[in-house]
Amino acid sequence: MKLLEDRIKSDGRILPNNVLKVDKFLNHQIDPILLDSMAKEWKQLYSDTKIDKILTIEASGIAMACFVGKEFGVPVLFAKKSKTSNISDDLYCENVHSYTHGTDHKVVVSKEYLNKGENVLIIDDFLATGSALVCLIGLCKQAGANVVGCGIAVEKAFQPGGDIIRNMGIRVESLARISEMDEEKGVSFT
Amino acid sequence: MKLLEDRIKSDGRILPNNVLKVDKFLNHQIDPILLDSMAKEWKQLYSDTKIDKILTIEASGIAMACFVGKEFGVPVLFAKKSKTSNISDDLYCENVHSYTHGTDHKVVVSKEYLNKGENVLIIDDFLATGSALVCLIGLCKQAGANVVGCGIAVEKAFQPGGDIIRNMGIRVESLARISEMDEEKGVSFT
Repeated sequence: MKLLEDRIKSDGRILPNNVLKVDKFLNHQIDPILLDSMAKEWKQLYSDTKIDKILTIEASGIAMACFVGKEFGVPVLFAKKSKTSNISDDLYCENVHSYTHGTDHKVVVSKEYLNKGENVLIIDDFLATGSALVCLIGLCKQAGANVVGCGIAVEKAFQPGGDIIRNMGIRVESLARISEMDEEKGVSFT
Repeated sequence: MKLLEDRIKSDGRILPNNVLKVDKFLNHQIDPILLDSMAKEWKQLYSDTKIDKILTIEASGIAMACFVGKEFGVPVLFAKKSKTSNISDDLYCENVHSYTHGTDHKVVVSKEYLNKGENVLIIDDFLATGSALVCLIGLCKQAGANVVGCGIAVEKAFQPGGDIIRNMGIRVESLARISEMDEEKGVSFT
């Protein structure tokens, strides 16, 4: 999606270790007009697909997911990061490893809101190692829900996450796919 | 706003200690069509006001704030809860006390995205003790930004937060104001 690629080029910042900061328009300050356009793009990409629910993970995926939910006219569920080690019986829980922060944490959703047979579209801001997506897919599996696809804002195509998810037979639609990034040369897209 | 009041009556759950769970449509599962209607209501309420930026706090305020940002055509900034005690020079920081969890934590925004003279509308899901709002107002004060008002989804009017903020001379527009709530009798609005 050219709009997002252009915005990454103009307002993204490349830090060491392949970190792309999009704090100016996606992750801390958010441009809601851009989110609205992105949501319309995913609506078009998945126009052939029956979708009952949008699933994302807090915090920066939530806004994006809600714009997508509005396009499809379906509820949005966001998985929460849990600080407690005691997980109650009414929650589905998966462990996720954050490579950015070097920590493990638990991610939960209420069993009440993720149901058997529901067609779920997963939305998230970044796809790099795939750990967050694998965790969200795991929550859907536990519930017996069908993951009909993923909508990703920025995929780091030089990292293994995209292949991991597509090799599971799951459709992934990334609006910007970065092939290379470098503090001096900037960012290139596939 | 009747739509929100009706939804609280039908889908909210009252727990002990005046806790109102709105997990089904606002806080965990989110109804984006409802958010869109709420944003349009705030747009109308603040139609006479110049607004440059929307400010909220993660996580459950983000989606609501982005729908409001879309209505006004302005960026949204969400304050982040910080785990680290070391706060870098490029952040504004305030302490906030959570009465729900009985803990203190730091809340930060990047100095880059909150600017002197900006007219800020603060959006949040709940107003009870007022601690989160006081913290967001404090961040604006540090930046020299003007708080032109607050938009709250659910105000617990029997708790002191609403008076505290209004007594600071700040306009507060709450879409549902609860006068009483009781596990047996349900919820009443002002």
